[in-house]
Amino acid sequence: MITFGGDYNPDQWDENVWDEDVHLMREAGVAMVTLGVFSWGNLELSDGVFDFGWLDRVMDLLHANGIGVDLATPTASPPIWLHQAHREVLPVSREGTRYWQGGRLGWCPSSPVFRRYALRIVERLAQRYGSHPAVRMWHVSNELGGGNRHCYCDVTAQAFQGWLQQRHGTVDALNKAWGTAFWGHRYREFAQVLPPRDSESAANPGLLLDFDRFSSDALLEHYLAERDLLRSIVGDTPVTTNFMVGTGPGVVDYARWAPHVDVVANDHYTISADPLRHVELAFAADRTRGLDRDRPWLLMEHATSAVNWQPRNRSNAPGELVRHSLAHVARGADGAMFFQWRASTAGAEQWHSAMVPHAGTRTKVWREVCELGALLGRLSEVAGSRVTADVALLYDDEAGWAWRAGQKPHHDLPPAHAARDYHRAFWRRGVTVDVVPPWADLSGYAVVVVPALYLVSDANARAVTAAAERGATVLVTYLSGIVDETNRVRAGGYPGAFRDLLGVVVEEFFVLADGERTELDDGAAASDWTEWVHADAADVVARFTTGPLAGVPAVTRRAVGAGEAWYVAARLDDAGIDRILDAAVAVPPVVPPRDGLEAVRRGRYLFLLNHSDVEYDIAAQGHDLVADRAVGGSLRLAPGEVAVVRS
Amino acid sequence: MITFGGDYNPDQWDENVWDEDVHLMREAGVAMVTLGVFSWGNLELSDGVFDFGWLDRVMDLLHANGIGVDLATPTASPPIWLHQAHREVLPVSREGTRYWQGGRLGWCPSSPVFRRYALRIVERLAQRYGSHPAVRMWHVSNELGGGNRHCYCDVTAQAFQGWLQQRHGTVDALNKAWGTAFWGHRYREFAQVLPPRDSESAANPGLLLDFDRFSSDALLEHYLAERDLLRSIVGDTPVTTNFMVGTGPGVVDYARWAPHVDVVANDHYTISADPLRHVELAFAADRTRGLDRDRPWLLMEHATSAVNWQPRNRSNAPGELVRHSLAHVARGADGAMFFQWRASTAGAEQWHSAMVPHAGTRTKVWREVCELGALLGRLSEVAGSRVTADVALLYDDEAGWAWRAGQKPHHDLPPAHAARDYHRAFWRRGVTVDVVPPWADLSGYAVVVVPALYLVSDANARAVTAAAERGATVLVTYLSGIVDETNRVRAGGYPGAFRDLLGVVVEEFFVLADGERTELDDGAAASDWTEWVHADAADVVARFTTGPLAGVPAVTRRAVGAGEAWYVAARLDDAGIDRILDAAVAVPPVVPPRDGLEAVRRGRYLFLLNHSDVEYDIAAQGHDLVADRAVGGSLRLAPGEVAVVRS
Amino acid sequence: MITFGGDYNPDQWDENVWDEDVHLMREAGVAMVTLGVFSWGNLELSDGVFDFGWLDRVMDLLHANGIGVDLATPTASPPIWLHQAHREVLPVSREGTRYWQGGRLGWCPSSPVFRRYALRIVERLAQRYGSHPAVRMWHVSNELGGGNRHCYCDVTAQAFQGWLQQRHGTVDALNKAWGTAFWGHRYREFAQVLPPRDSESAANPGLLLDFDRFSSDALLEHYLAERDLLRSIVGDTPVTTNFMVGTGPGVVDYARWAPHVDVVANDHYTISADPLRHVELAFAADRTRGLDRDRPWLLMEHATSAVNWQPRNRSNAPGELVRHSLAHVARGADGAMFFQWRASTAGAEQWHSAMVPHAGTRTKVWREVCELGALLGRLSEVAGSRVTADVALLYDDEAGWAWRAGQKPHHDLPPAHAARDYHRAFWRRGVTVDVVPPWADLSGYAVVVVPALYLVSDANARAVTAAAERGATVLVTYLSGIVDETNRVRAGGYPGAFRDLLGVVVEEFFVLADGERTELDDGAAASDWTEWVHADAADVVARFTTGPLAGVPAVTRRAVGAGEAWYVAARLDDAGIDRILDAAVAVPPVVPPRDGLEAVRRGRYLFLLNHSDVEYDIAAQGHDLVADRAVGGSLRLAPGEVAVVRS
Repeated sequence: MITFGGDYNPDQWDENVWDEDVHLMREAGVAMVTLGVFSWGNLELSDGVFDFGWLDRVMDLLHANGIGVDLATPTASPPIWLHQAHREVLPVSREGTRYWQGGRLGWCPSSPVFRRYALRIVERLAQRYGSHPAVRMWHVSNELGGGNRHCYCDVTAQAFQGWLQQRHGTVDALNKAWGTAFWGHRYREFAQVLPPRDSESAANPGLLLDFDRFSSDALLEHYLAERDLLRSIVGDTPVTTNFMVGTGPGVVDYARWAPHVDVVANDHYTISADPLRHVELAFAADRTRGLDRDRPWLLMEHATSAVNWQPRNRSNAPGELVRHSLAHVARGADGAMFFQWRASTAGAEQWHSAMVPHAGTRTKVWREVCELGALLGRLSEVAGSRVTADVALLYDDEAGWAWRAGQKPHHDLPPAHAARDYHRAFWRRGVTVDVVPPWADLSGYAVVVVPALYLVSDANARAVTAAAERGATVLVTYLSGIVDETNRVRAGGYPGAFRDLLGVVVEEFFVLADGERTELDDGAAASDWTEWVHADAADVVARFTTGPLAGVPAVTRRAVGAGEAWYVAARLDDAGIDRILDAAVAVPPVVPPRDGLEAVRRGRYLFLLNHSDVEYDIAAQGHDLVADRAVGGSLRLAPGEVAVVRS
Repeated sequence: MITFGGDYNPDQWDENVWDEDVHLMREAGVAMVTLGVFSWGNLELSDGVFDFGWLDRVMDLLHANGIGVDLATPTASPPIWLHQAHREVLPVSREGTRYWQGGRLGWCPSSPVFRRYALRIVERLAQRYGSHPAVRMWHVSNELGGGNRHCYCDVTAQAFQGWLQQRHGTVDALNKAWGTAFWGHRYREFAQVLPPRDSESAANPGLLLDFDRFSSDALLEHYLAERDLLRSIVGDTPVTTNFMVGTGPGVVDYARWAPHVDVVANDHYTISADPLRHVELAFAADRTRGLDRDRPWLLMEHATSAVNWQPRNRSNAPGELVRHSLAHVARGADGAMFFQWRASTAGAEQWHSAMVPHAGTRTKVWREVCELGALLGRLSEVAGSRVTADVALLYDDEAGWAWRAGQKPHHDLPPAHAARDYHRAFWRRGVTVDVVPPWADLSGYAVVVVPALYLVSDANARAVTAAAERGATVLVTYLSGIVDETNRVRAGGYPGAFRDLLGVVVEEFFVLADGERTELDDGAAASDWTEWVHADAADVVARFTTGPLAGVPAVTRRAVGAGEAWYVAARLDDAGIDRILDAAVAVPPVVPPRDGLEAVRRGRYLFLLNHSDVEYDIAAQGHDLVADRAVGGSLRLAPGEVAVVRS
Repeated sequence: MITFGGDYNPDQWDENVWDEDVHLMREAGVAMVTLGVFSWGNLELSDGVFDFGWLDRVMDLLHANGIGVDLATPTASPPIWLHQAHREVLPVSREGTRYWQGGRLGWCPSSPVFRRYALRIVERLAQRYGSHPAVRMWHVSNELGGGNRHCYCDVTAQAFQGWLQQRHGTVDALNKAWGTAFWGHRYREFAQVLPPRDSESAANPGLLLDFDRFSSDALLEHYLAERDLLRSIVGDTPVTTNFMVGTGPGVVDYARWAPHVDVVANDHYTISADPLRHVELAFAADRTRGLDRDRPWLLMEHATSAVNWQPRNRSNAPGELVRHSLAHVARGADGAMFFQWRASTAGAEQWHSAMVPHAGTRTKVWREVCELGALLGRLSEVAGSRVTADVALLYDDEAGWAWRAGQKPHHDLPPAHAARDYHRAFWRRGVTVDVVPPWADLSGYAVVVVPALYLVSDANARAVTAAAERGATVLVTYLSGIVDETNRVRAGGYPGAFRDLLGVVVEEFFVLADGERTELDDGAAASDWTEWVHADAADVVARFTTGPLAGVPAVTRRAVGAGEAWYVAARLDDAGIDRILDAAVAVPPVVPPRDGLEAVRRGRYLFLLNHSDVEYDIAAQGHDLVADRAVGGSLRLAPGEVAVVRS
């Protein structure tokens, strides 16, 4: 089954709305709702005083109507009374001021006080509903780190010191790793290390990166505490938490969290200002799938239409809801759930779209919600099938954090820009990509892309080399392999970790000014970033022809074992990237590529999504589950239309 | 009499300058000065130690020269010794840090300590000068809220809690009004509610709006305390305070303050970057007049030329001073006063223009000050006459605050944008508009415009409907009637409060990207905002032709009783608005409209201001008070010239 | 000798790297290194526990290899243990929060606790190495003020009060100077004055300027304490500290610091986004030379290529390193040193270029470092020779601070914009300029330029008049002589201090909008700033022809004694400035000007630097020290090439 549903917050409505809710859920085909995400204050009215009556009634009502429950621990949103009694649980900013009540995730991940209160409500919930027949899944807290990613308080400082001792062993090792001799910032004992609180000048990059790591681990520790407690009470029911895998580096390190969830669950929201938001969506979905390639994942939240937190929040055009949901399913999701069921009329998210909009059911949104529900029903058989890809694209939150940690050659270049540039190029050519962490097993891939992977460990770099030797085409771009795991530059010429593999040495970066372009002799143009390359043991594929690097190699290729290794020493335009992929990549497209046509194969199923305003005839054979019709050789796809052809 | 004068700060100059001051005031025709606005520190030298000698001498000197005094209580600017002795009176920022001495309005409106000191100096002043023959008016403090609009301290928190109890009665009512069930932020008692201090995520819109209301009321309470004390001592002398009515939502709710001042007095400064600043000025003046339509108002401050607080501060071109002052008079001001008399050479406002500039009297500014003084003398007979308008445009600070309070579909759209769009359209067509609060008596208006009135109460919405039924043309735009007084969205389809009146239901907003445009079939173009309209019981006047809403109604009309109700579901360009007004509005212009010609009728007087660089012949009959000449059928107005024709 | 070398931080590397370091230094011709700038934490391991062993070894190694040492006191970077034991030494922000460990210059200049610790380590260093044969110079701290320019703590407040008492004598004098009567902010005693901490509105400009002055003096006091202690121990060895003279107002007042250093030493970094960075470099060098015209100066730091602290950090194109270094030498530097020797792989500056880059010696950077070392060797004879100029351009940090202190007519106009506009115009025409403080001896100059010198004292203004009377051409621009030393506007018409000299009175400024232009009748165009000038006793050279000032004089000239005084009342485009200089300035160029050709005469040496991509033939005679060849009448200079011709 492809799970269909959304976040349900019945405690925010009068009970007399519940019946209509359940009636509409059935109409739409909702199979499961995520319940109680923000209910702590409505379940524990004051310290130790609980009221589960309303939740009992909701659970029973849902169950009676055949709707499953993904039951949330409500720890994302501590009640007011807790903040008032224990102000010390609130996070402290980098500048040293403690936040106040009124937001969400208002808690320091390292606070033992918060942990105690959180586990108590979790325990009560688990005990009460652990064997309730409606429960399909447990949902720990919500978007952990989205609000409390970093806390700079003294409790955190102490936890950080302990974490550092674990990681570095001795303070001398830490000093060496971080290069604290610079600026004479040598520590004598772990107790001297503080979080990177506001100072009057730039901070140590090693400290910044380790604080990012620690912060992720501190939140993970909280997650594990809730999970383990749940596990001890609720038995085998799957436990997860909803990630926020998107384009940039995560608020936590999802690739390292993934082994700890029973199902990888993701929240994804498109960015209104991004004209290629459906391609960004594909990137996020491919990355989510890459967190656990062995199993389908769950789209835990997306939006039926506009959100409220961007400068201008775009609504979905007609048809877009279905296409976006289906794109996630195409890329491995076994469910499409929304935040939230019924649009709030009050509260901080009153302008976030929902399955039942403010205007009710006579709306495009409701029509498409129902359409999607029915469609997912017809796609049940797709559940459990796997997406396989011949191309791996390496992506790592730690590398992104490292690139952002402190002063850099180029501060306008976001960590994931190259990952998106290359992923988009494969999207254009109809080739599916697994976005995977650098330690993923690369043995099955024909192509491995290493896009501006700033930080890489020796072991992971060796795995890339091994892939080439084994026969893969490896494509490494500028800004890869630059620092080691301690965020230290690998000396001896860039791209430190990949020099030998590529047969090149880069002596210096040449950052371009905003709007500046450098030409290549193959017709490509570079912006933002170029490098002075020595192609010592590589063939030169293209050279710069303008600027201070005129004549210098820009693209190189080297035969390596049974494979080859390419280096691209500049941020190229789309045409330039396409040209390289034409030459380097032999992976055939799922179907011949067309502008705006998304084509993904999942198991026996060919997903076709026409994001363009052009009608296409596409060669296909089998049965289209969307239209429930046989497809005999060719399928006509109108603008905006979708098809899922079982072969 | 049209009062002419300005703020006079003699304590900032050596006494030997005073004689020249008074001499020049007489030369310029100054009738009244606002005295002592910033004099607290010069009157109360330390706690309880007073020095009124210099003020006695100034008062007598002014009186001896026939110059009246608008005597200010000096509470806008507490003395240094007070801040040092009672640091707790200073406001606290949202982040929780207390401000320091050195600015102005450095006090928490809820501070009992400040109130005590403030009332003591007020009492002394009132006792000493209550019967001084120079006093024409009392001026409470200065621009209240301009600096201390919001304080987040604990004293404020307590006052806020009391205010909430007054407003909501029970904490359950508050929880319901704010929808605190969302994010589980239910309060158990009023003592748990805090001002919206900095939290790690978005705040509750109900809390934000109520805090805006409370803050306005806290300042009003301060004003009333001063006023009542004055009243008890000085008898019938009018008491007022200077508002800052401009384009955006006020720092306080001026429409709700207006009943508490004996004369509505306003400070107005143009915005250098606004190429249509004279139209913005007209909007502010029409809005000031709308606060109390029964009586003339007083322009308490404007600038002779540049100010100092904008990024680039434009000086007035020759003639602009007179035109701007006269525009205020045309729209109902019975006075034109400036900040300030003599330009400071030191202090925070050393670069604010004045009536006597740094360069002295051989200046354009001084010449035009004298010219204006003489001109206002010739306009004495205009005083007391009223501006009447056939068009009401509804405007409400609460609605503006609500639109700004929290996360919204479109964060780049300022609250008053639509009010200005439509006011400007009427300015172009030479039709005078009353900008009035939504609870104003609408019975006299042929046209009622409701421009993006985001928040409206049921009662006020009913009054709009009643106006239509009575025969008025009602023109409602997008984003109107969306939330109720608690800042909750009215469910069931937008524009909630006006659906029935208009015969439309809007199912969803479609915010446009920056620079994006959607076309209409009547030739108009929309930017920023469009809506998916169902014209259930309305005629479709125009439809969208491009974008996801192609074919959807954009402008509708419905017959309602003796009148009609129009809906405009998009932000249209000027031509598009003009087209609608052409079709919907039958109000004739004061004179046939010309580019850049401002024409307003005030009682028997026709004000004509030529803001353009073109010479115009205008049909008019009577006597031009400006040139003191008879006008027999036609009047030639050179570029920049003004005329006031008594018919 | 032209000193060649850089900052050397051996404590940041394993000792086994030192031998290679010294070997490479010899290869490159390094004569001196700045040692130990950030070594405090490596020398004083905990309170009073010292480890000089490694430094002994480095000193001896350098000496044994003939490399001199500029030995730094390490006070720019306090050790972690000091911050932990005495958190009170850390600066406090304007908002009132104290910074934390982890940056550099993390100390309040007025802290007696910090001073005590700082002097102890200085004393130990001086005692240990005062007579070490390697020591050539002492380098006090580093870039003082770069991070701790302003501290707002209570200790600072007290020091500030004492400073104010020194400066103003009585609190009444202070009240008068600052105009505290405005807003009633009169002080009763010095103890009431606080640093300009965050208030809810704009601050007093007199307070802001005096706080800038005090802050500079507090840092100077620290410098002097270190210097005097060194002097008492190390005898005649020169003592200096590295300035950061660039384009904007300094973090301290370098012109007033200069008499206190034995050698003026400067750090200069180009700005990547500045397309004319070589001209900005010339400005900074001319300004550095102007601090002490009697002696050569030392370029203590510049970069071999990219820095790390700008948004996008540009690398030097091939040849640029040599040209930039030589441009400093041409303008009086007797040394070209870099930050730093070996590129850090860790720490906050891991992305700052160095003499030995990450990639090692097979690099453009290393080649050019060696080339430069050799070249400077061939230029030894240039050392000690002086640059003389016929043009003085007045520049004052206090004036820049005053322009930035508080609300102004135009907030987008940086203090030094006019100084750069006019300096650049002289650069274009091949005429060398001394950038000097307003109190410099002007007797030798044929031309004195006063570019937007906002603040000037009476005495300094008189000196400008005296220069004109003596025969010089004086060229004063808009925004000059506006305020006196207390930051009070000089009343009676702008440009207050220069009205009589120029024979003009300006009645009002007319700031232009962003992108707005006003034309002049000589073909020039003005942007940003124009003025309404009365040419009472001056000839009108050009008038405005558009805008509100059409017909008003824009450029005037007046005969004064044996000289003349020009006034330029607008910010003109380059062509407009060139036209004025053509008419007013008779100083011949060093060589006939060519696009992008920099030509400077230093003593017998003609420096020629071709920044263009055009080959030039230049008339010259003598011996080119760069190519070591005779020059007989003409010299051909390829694009990018340099020559130093001894005549």
